[in-house]
Amino acid sequence: MKRSFKDLIKGLVSNDRVCLSKLISEVESNSSSIFKIINSVKKIPNNVYTLGITGPPGAGKSTLTNQIIKKLRNLNLKIGVIAVDPSSPFTGGAVLGDRVRMQEHSLDSSVFIRSVGSRGDLGGLSSCTSSIIKLFDIFGMDIVIIETVGVGQTELDIIKISDSVLVTLVPEAGDGIQAMKAGLMEIGDIFIVNKADRSGADKLAREIEYMISLKHDSSSRKTNVLTTQAENDVGINELLDEIMAFKEHEELNGSLQKKRNTRKLSELNTMVEKELRNELEKTKETATFKELVNKLENGLLEPEVLVKKIISLLKKDN
Amino acid sequence: MKRSFKDLIKGLVSNDRVCLSKLISEVESNSSSIFKIINSVKKIPNNVYTLGITGPPGAGKSTLTNQIIKKLRNLNLKIGVIAVDPSSPFTGGAVLGDRVRMQEHSLDSSVFIRSVGSRGDLGGLSSCTSSIIKLFDIFGMDIVIIETVGVGQTELDIIKISDSVLVTLVPEAGDGIQAMKAGLMEIGDIFIVNKADRSGADKLAREIEYMISLKHDSSSRKTNVLTTQAENDVGINELLDEIMAFKEHEELNGSLQKKRNTRKLSELNTMVEKELRNELEKTKETATFKELVNKLENGLLEPEVLVKKIISLLKKDN
Repeated sequence: MKRSFKDLIKGLVSNDRVCLSKLISEVESNSSSIFKIINSVKKIPNNVYTLGITGPPGAGKSTLTNQIIKKLRNLNLKIGVIAVDPSSPFTGGAVLGDRVRMQEHSLDSSVFIRSVGSRGDLGGLSSCTSSIIKLFDIFGMDIVIIETVGVGQTELDIIKISDSVLVTLVPEAGDGIQAMKAGLMEIGDIFIVNKADRSGADKLAREIEYMISLKHDSSSRKTNVLTTQAENDVGINELLDEIMAFKEHEELNGSLQKKRNTRKLSELNTMVEKELRNELEKTKETATFKELVNKLENGLLEPEVLVKKIISLLKKDN
Repeated sequence: MKRSFKDLIKGLVSNDRVCLSKLISEVESNSSSIFKIINSVKKIPNNVYTLGITGPPGAGKSTLTNQIIKKLRNLNLKIGVIAVDPSSPFTGGAVLGDRVRMQEHSLDSSVFIRSVGSRGDLGGLSSCTSSIIKLFDIFGMDIVIIETVGVGQTELDIIKISDSVLVTLVPEAGDGIQAMKAGLMEIGDIFIVNKADRSGADKLAREIEYMISLKHDSSSRKTNVLTTQAENDVGINELLDEIMAFKEHEELNGSLQKKRNTRKLSELNTMVEKELRNELEKTKETATFKELVNKLENGLLEPEVLVKKIISLLKKDN
């Protein structure tokens, strides 16, 4: 039996995974659904901490994500994962080995993994991701990990939703330069040189440290560069410590709150502008608007004279 | 004595060049002035035919413009010229020879030449040009020529304001290809190969004709390619005939009216959207809005819940 929207929301609040899954599909396919959901629950916990993991394809982001999930589970935290990376095993684009590795969380009821496809609508991807984070929040997650490949504006937009951003690189010729070109240097809060058993790892780490030092703002916390071997669980505990230290630092000095407020305001702004465009479209459907346009086309009224009339038309309830 | 805005508008309507000049400066420096002017005169003649002349630097656009002005003056038409081309002698960027040649119209009271600088605000340039056309219209001009160098999006935007577009090219290696790359092939209604005494002129004309034939829509009039030597008054009469034939064709089959209506509607749309943004800014200044944002920042209200409240706030007169 198909459950009603209201029942799904009830289920979401009372920790029902099926309801969570269905509502994620709902916000994915219809961007206005999140309004109905939030307006129904009225208040969301705002308890989720979002961790963005990005970097070039092949940097080992999924393995790293997997290890981070394990460590966070040891702390008994509830975790949501959103995989936007098209090459991620979550989204079905990778080799079987990776896929199997991820399976180990599939029976853990405190981990929920969801892949998000771009479906050609790149503009809607970051608002969709943002909606899913809210669903995870209502569901009661503590941490949401967003995994996305660090190329292109869309990915940078999505990663801006994160409370902290982990940039993952691997020792490869010119990788540091690539990261800089892709804008990764600007968005990283923590940098990881993964697959650190490869030669050139230390050199890359020092390169990144140097680049960070150039843009370093003396008032902020030092951005650290860590070396890991996610595959062999080397350096992951240190990474977890660094993530937690960064989180605590930003909680204490108020910058996390500030960041989130800026984000909420910008989100509000986008929503209001979109709603205004909707209102305008509705106005354009009215008979009065069509009469006015008719006068415009017949040279009886100029656009400059019409503007105010249309604004008043929009302001009247229609 | 400084004349009042009202007096300037009165002067504009009664054909006072000084008033025209001052009002052009006014709309250039303050984009909202055109609203005051149009709302004051209520109705504009809509009598002006706008002719865009574009092409790469060095194609002889100014010399051509000069010759066209002469021919149009022989028909006793009143002419406004807007030079957006930074390399144009009108805007002061050219050699003395060109400049002197233009001087011959400076004593003709039926020709008014105005250069428009970008001043860094490229977005405002096309709306500024559009406002000046309206002033010329109220002043009683018959034809407005817009001269602009055919490179970049801004120039293409400006040229879209024209009722017909003359694309001027010169025989030079790869000029046809350059024109195509710059998007000139799409916007031209008439193509001119100027400096046709140079070798390669016929080859270029045939190249352009071929490119036109590829995109030619059987329902529309054949786009002609003319060869001219503006410097020596060769081919200019034929060009004038072609301009007039094109104009008449579009007047008769209604496509001129259609083009202008589309333009007016798009202009109206831009104005309404801008005005809505203004209204939103005003709303943001209200105490109620600030209270709502406060609640947002304190986690008492989510953006999704706030949107409707802000729209109603905007709809109330504030």
